[in-house]
Amino acid sequence: MNAGVEWALHSCLNLTWIEPGETVTATKLAAFYDLPAAYLNKQLQALAKAGILASTSGPRGGFRLARRPEDITLLDVVTAIEGREEAFRCNEILRQGPGGRADVDYRAACLISQAMSGAELAWRKELAGRTIADLKAAVEVAFPSTPESTRHHLANV
Amino acid sequence: MNAGVEWALHSCLNLTWIEPGETVTATKLAAFYDLPAAYLNKQLQALAKAGILASTSGPRGGFRLARRPEDITLLDVVTAIEGREEAFRCNEILRQGPGGRADVDYRAACLISQAMSGAELAWRKELAGRTIADLKAAVEVAFPSTPESTRHHLANV
Repeated sequence: MNAGVEWALHSCLNLTWIEPGETVTATKLAAFYDLPAAYLNKQLQALAKAGILASTSGPRGGFRLARRPEDITLLDVVTAIEGREEAFRCNEILRQGPGGRADVDYRAACLISQAMSGAELAWRKELAGRTIADLKAAVEVAFPSTPESTRHHLANV
Repeated sequence: MNAGVEWALHSCLNLTWIEPGETVTATKLAAFYDLPAAYLNKQLQALAKAGILASTSGPRGGFRLARRPEDITLLDVVTAIEGREEAFRCNEILRQGPGGRADVDYRAACLISQAMSGAELAWRKELAGRTIADLKAAVEVAFPSTPESTRHHLANV
């Protein structure tokens, strides 16, 4: 998994704390963690393409969340950055084995493939069961000064 | 995840069906699925290093399972090939953020890192809960001719 997932999750979370109607530039989001702005911008564009962020142009342009934090799961963010492909890719090697058939979809028929997909499903379910709003709430309990500090550092002045 | 995981899982499963005391060469295990023998051999060596396979040399040398199929989980095989590193690697970007501290382990403290590790744990638990023996039993129910066919094709004659 590329480092962009970590950056994207933190950026989405930070954007929950800006003032309504505000946006933040890629440069500012990158400076927050001293990240390379051009590469972070690529992740932010991917999040925008997935409908997680909205971007506006112009002198006060930048990024904001495109939907409520309750409606953005961790899986949404991971998928926006990494794509939908499973980590275990079944290459259907059974087809080349004894008795292998051209007309069978071994991604479905192979019990090894099924077991690996089952594990991946468990991973996806965990990520789909957590939202940016859950993270926001947990951070606000554990680190009460974070919202104000983040808002201050990202303020588009 | 590299294709070697698929090859390793199928090879371990196939080795459950050979006669006790027999071994199978990397060349034969590769030919079974028309895989590149040199690359499969690398995976088999990794499985041997992890104590999943035992290898013997000599004219009748080759690989066999080093322990009972009940004692080999899918996670054992995946870890032998892919290593122990988590798919999501926390780079602790909070340390570079406002108020970031050098003396905090953000892999433990960061709630995003915790959430991502939790999902990975769910994946590992699934894989740790399935053994090569489970796969063997399921295949023998679904495809009763597989054990005999596999034994025949791998026979070290």
